[in-house]
Amino acid sequence: MGKRIHNFNAGPAALPLPVLEEIRDEFLDYEGSGMSVIELSHRSKWFDDIINEAVERTKRLLKLGEDFHVLFVQGGASLQFCMIPMNLAVQGKPVDYINTGTWSTKAIKEAEIQGKDVHVIASSEDKDFSYIPKDFKVDKDAAYLHFTSNNTIKGTQWAAFPQAGDVPLISDMSSDIMSRSFDASPFGLIYAGAQKNIGPSGTALVIVRRDMLDRVPDGLPTMLRYTTYAEKNSMFNTPSCFVIYTINLVLKWVEKTIGGLNKMEQLNKEKAGLLYDFIDKSDFYRGTAAKDSRSLMNVTFRLPSEELEAKFVAQALEAGMGGLKGHRSVGGCRASIYNATGMDGIKALVDFMTEFEKKEG
Amino acid sequence: MGKRIHNFNAGPAALPLPVLEEIRDEFLDYEGSGMSVIELSHRSKWFDDIINEAVERTKRLLKLGEDFHVLFVQGGASLQFCMIPMNLAVQGKPVDYINTGTWSTKAIKEAEIQGKDVHVIASSEDKDFSYIPKDFKVDKDAAYLHFTSNNTIKGTQWAAFPQAGDVPLISDMSSDIMSRSFDASPFGLIYAGAQKNIGPSGTALVIVRRDMLDRVPDGLPTMLRYTTYAEKNSMFNTPSCFVIYTINLVLKWVEKTIGGLNKMEQLNKEKAGLLYDFIDKSDFYRGTAAKDSRSLMNVTFRLPSEELEAKFVAQALEAGMGGLKGHRSVGGCRASIYNATGMDGIKALVDFMTEFEKKEG
Repeated sequence: MGKRIHNFNAGPAALPLPVLEEIRDEFLDYEGSGMSVIELSHRSKWFDDIINEAVERTKRLLKLGEDFHVLFVQGGASLQFCMIPMNLAVQGKPVDYINTGTWSTKAIKEAEIQGKDVHVIASSEDKDFSYIPKDFKVDKDAAYLHFTSNNTIKGTQWAAFPQAGDVPLISDMSSDIMSRSFDASPFGLIYAGAQKNIGPSGTALVIVRRDMLDRVPDGLPTMLRYTTYAEKNSMFNTPSCFVIYTINLVLKWVEKTIGGLNKMEQLNKEKAGLLYDFIDKSDFYRGTAAKDSRSLMNVTFRLPSEELEAKFVAQALEAGMGGLKGHRSVGGCRASIYNATGMDGIKALVDFMTEFEKKEG
Repeated sequence: MGKRIHNFNAGPAALPLPVLEEIRDEFLDYEGSGMSVIELSHRSKWFDDIINEAVERTKRLLKLGEDFHVLFVQGGASLQFCMIPMNLAVQGKPVDYINTGTWSTKAIKEAEIQGKDVHVIASSEDKDFSYIPKDFKVDKDAAYLHFTSNNTIKGTQWAAFPQAGDVPLISDMSSDIMSRSFDASPFGLIYAGAQKNIGPSGTALVIVRRDMLDRVPDGLPTMLRYTTYAEKNSMFNTPSCFVIYTINLVLKWVEKTIGGLNKMEQLNKEKAGLLYDFIDKSDFYRGTAAKDSRSLMNVTFRLPSEELEAKFVAQALEAGMGGLKGHRSVGGCRASIYNATGMDGIKALVDFMTEFEKKEG
């Protein structure tokens, strides 16, 4: 095996090394079955245990009551942009959205394609999505309020979630699910593409409150109905077995090795704190997100010129740090520091940034 | 590592051992990237090479002309049941379906849910789907003719595909894709859940002829439009990277180790032939599919009693042969012998069946 790099990719992203080692070690024979985990029938006892464990761990970590279903739906967050209004909009009521960047914009577009009565009640587009809006008024009769909890591209994050009274919250938590603890009770639905904090790409984790399922209209295609997944424990058809298996191992790591979401959150704050403190003390590096809206997951920053940014990214890679280029739509630099990125990675990055500034600053 | 069993599961199913070993061996460091394949960005050069190779291998193996797109779409064949009529039905024209069992029935249901003008032009339901219909008339103006090339549950398979003149064929080849060579030119679309012959669960391989894309109506949700996948090389959003990576390795094995689809087909005929010959000579075992409709992939058979069937399945498992129970909807026994099942597995099974008959017959 070669040397593993410090992986700052935005997603698919770094996963915990002990999880990767466990997958490797049992890859040809899953728990004495004589089969690889990817050869197991999804109707077998082995896979039943895997999916049930993944569901139970999700419930324990997020302290979900019995009124929540935990589902695994293929198609990523992008298919959820479409399934949410299709299943959960209510005839005669508006659907409220807050626009904090690319992913919110895509979610809004899919609701509009379906002709829903979309109200964008707040947006930070005026300042290039560099902050989280504070002043907005939720429609009292809205079917739901949708927001993106963490914005991977612009590096912003909701520190506290929007207040919407009785209107159910719906959130795309693709890039910060399982990175902190929060109260799930105001949420009607939470969804997350797996490929940032909890596993490989190929499945969205969908958490839906039971009462929301009453809204699912008749006549939807079977695979686009949340009820299909809720009634069959996500196994109406063959689910993405390997992804669910890996998610379960990652959640076990969060639960047992890290010690749960409070501890995970503390670590994430320490990691991001070290990096932001360094950036704030520097005149060479400049953070792009408003300070009160900064993401603990995606740290976006600029250097004095695009030329220096390209040099920075290239030399960092040579020094064993990958994925530091900003999203192709915005440029600049970005360090994605999800759960699996350890403090050692942050320290290595800060050391490298210090050296680079000395040379080029 | 424990002893690997002979895996006769219907899907997810056996995969070639050299492929599993390759995945294991490079799992912590993909081609010197310093990352696991499941940690690579889908926008990286590494993953670009993977997906492009998988596409090119598919085209070479199936001898597809430049007028075909090869796509990877999450949601399995079940989501295709919905996407096909949604994208490819034509206003004012019927859509023709042939019903050869559970999966055809589900495909028909999804077209009906959408209110399409569904014509079921043939069905083998009268004899419990034990044969492939021969007499049927395709509507000359049908938008397409849909059929299931291999029926995993009943163990039947189209030996030669239906003739439909200018009407494009659409086929669910989930359980026999890449098991034989065929002329793809009459097909408008071919789809296959990966988890039987080509990889792990979590993606459908979709092969669509360019001219079919002109039919995709405006106003569909982005993730449900074939054009979205065709325009972005299946990467509008993050695809199921690990599944595509594994598919590429399995196709490499078919191409390089086996020597292509003609050779694969010959092997599959030899394997199925050995098993059917044995069943035909026995008075104890009884094949359930009509002889001219027998599947080379799923060999379904009964024993004299359900009690003996249960005993057979249990003792086979003890003898290192798994997955021989028939589908929960039909009972009996079934040996799924996809590409990755070697002749050694068939011989071991025949030996076991011989011994079992001696003891219990």
